[in-house]
Amino acid sequence: MPLPSFQPYAGARVLVTGGLGFIGSHLSQKLVVELGADVTIIDSLIPEYGGNPYNIREIADAVHVNYSDIRDPWSIRYLVKGQDFIFNLAGQVSHIDSMRDPETDLDINCRSQLSLLEACRENNPETQIVFAASRQQYGRPQFVPVTEEHPLVPVDVNGINLVAGERYHLLYDEVYGIRAASLRLTNTYGPHLLMKHDRQGFITTFIRLALEGEPIRVFGDGSQLRDFTYVSDAVDAFLAAGVTEAVYGQALNVGGIEPVSLLGVAELCQELAGAGGTVEMVPWPPDRAKIDIGSIYVEHARLTELTGWEPQVGLREGLTETFAFYRRHGDHYWSE
Amino acid sequence: MPLPSFQPYAGARVLVTGGLGFIGSHLSQKLVVELGADVTIIDSLIPEYGGNPYNIREIADAVHVNYSDIRDPWSIRYLVKGQDFIFNLAGQVSHIDSMRDPETDLDINCRSQLSLLEACRENNPETQIVFAASRQQYGRPQFVPVTEEHPLVPVDVNGINLVAGERYHLLYDEVYGIRAASLRLTNTYGPHLLMKHDRQGFITTFIRLALEGEPIRVFGDGSQLRDFTYVSDAVDAFLAAGVTEAVYGQALNVGGIEPVSLLGVAELCQELAGAGGTVEMVPWPPDRAKIDIGSIYVEHARLTELTGWEPQVGLREGLTETFAFYRRHGDHYWSE
Repeated sequence: MPLPSFQPYAGARVLVTGGLGFIGSHLSQKLVVELGADVTIIDSLIPEYGGNPYNIREIADAVHVNYSDIRDPWSIRYLVKGQDFIFNLAGQVSHIDSMRDPETDLDINCRSQLSLLEACRENNPETQIVFAASRQQYGRPQFVPVTEEHPLVPVDVNGINLVAGERYHLLYDEVYGIRAASLRLTNTYGPHLLMKHDRQGFITTFIRLALEGEPIRVFGDGSQLRDFTYVSDAVDAFLAAGVTEAVYGQALNVGGIEPVSLLGVAELCQELAGAGGTVEMVPWPPDRAKIDIGSIYVEHARLTELTGWEPQVGLREGLTETFAFYRRHGDHYWSE
Repeated sequence: MPLPSFQPYAGARVLVTGGLGFIGSHLSQKLVVELGADVTIIDSLIPEYGGNPYNIREIADAVHVNYSDIRDPWSIRYLVKGQDFIFNLAGQVSHIDSMRDPETDLDINCRSQLSLLEACRENNPETQIVFAASRQQYGRPQFVPVTEEHPLVPVDVNGINLVAGERYHLLYDEVYGIRAASLRLTNTYGPHLLMKHDRQGFITTFIRLALEGEPIRVFGDGSQLRDFTYVSDAVDAFLAAGVTEAVYGQALNVGGIEPVSLLGVAELCQELAGAGGTVEMVPWPPDRAKIDIGSIYVEHARLTELTGWEPQVGLREGLTETFAFYRRHGDHYWSE
């Protein structure tokens, strides 16, 4: 089954929260350049988060950028007006940070989502929202591949708050008829990933260390399996979900082509980066061991069934693109 | 299996959040009068909520009452110090209010819980916490009786936020070793229930209308089953959980003796109140139908297995006590 037609985005008004971030910027670019949408980006550029003006360097003159924090409950009421689609990607995504500062995570991942949904209820109940959630919500897997029926028992504050943020969306869909869907993303990677610190997921760290020729430390024996989605595939998942009526009201997994061990991906990074770095196996640091979840990868058959979406880019190909990007543009990502 | 010994509460320092409320006041009274605990109550007396100084009329001189809002992140840091047990019952419990003002529900049921847990992590990691959760967290039952394994798919904002509040407790137990447990309460009733408005559950409304000799309206055909816990049984569940090491880290249902239909409980209320009111069956109001969940009652076998707790007070006996209380003390509950 092919992807649905993206024709509905031509001339549509589209709001992308977190649009200066990793996935949001690629999504905005495709919407503007390939699909002819009228895109407004909301981003607060919180220094520790993934927003980076350089991410929209090719479309800066073709999008409206509204610099604001989604925690501000007033501006969002105006900004949602008249938007045909809202891709809601703004969020605090560091699991580590969520344990260090749980209240900020709550504000961004719960309070702001309620603000946005209340704003839509008041000012734009006809809009259609696709929310970026995470497989982090499942916690320690009771079985793999993890399907959407897997219990949600998150093992960090970020996962708990994402569960609430996702449920708000589905509740507003059910009770108020505001069409909303949620995509549970796994390890998504590619150009535009934040590189300035190590708190947004191991794949970011692996890529950075490989590029720097530094050793990659794999916790334990590195046999834990993970799945990976290249960012162009993630973008297509959002676009496909947005135009598929049957997706609204649901939360769906977005996975990868096949799971790979942490040791395997570390070695692949070092090979493709070609900077001479090594892979070391080290014991688990206590604070990470506490929130480790073992092998986990997801089943995305339901999204495929409903939209035709399937991941197209393999890990080797995606990482090759990623390293090529950072070799050329890295100076915009290693510091502010 | 009998209940565990409550001897550990003798001389113990016990904090009860929401201690001027319905269950909190009965719990505080038993702790002080029967068990010899040193009890501190936190309550903010928010007018629309269940706190009422009259609820502790018999122990007012024997407890410390700290009038404060659990949303205040500073006072709680001091108040948790040195407490051996924390019964964490403060919360926004109206499902209707949570839909009207979701952000206040979030502040009280999520942000405050994080504040309290962070306060314990910093200032009293040795304490033991029992949190008051709700069967509302399950949403529409996929099977009855509902066990703790039932998926958590709440159908209102209050349920979503309670899921998060409960998970924070279990997370802090798991990651930080702060012993915490959660009790998922069903329809709990008895003396001290708030009577001044109709937004805190149908049993409150039924009792009030029956006492006033007004008709009780049952939505639909009234065949939906519910379970009921008399407040003294709920108090014993908290006390039993608090002294049972195996309960910590878990979320457990607290149910009733047997489920009763809404029509049945409405008729029983009118009979026992003896004020001449009738029962009328009316169609579902649209805003309630949207969040209706059909028949639901819970399985509490796990709590029984771990602690010996079982409900002792039947619905007829409990309601008889309740009506006797309000006939004598009602003027303290019908207005401020």
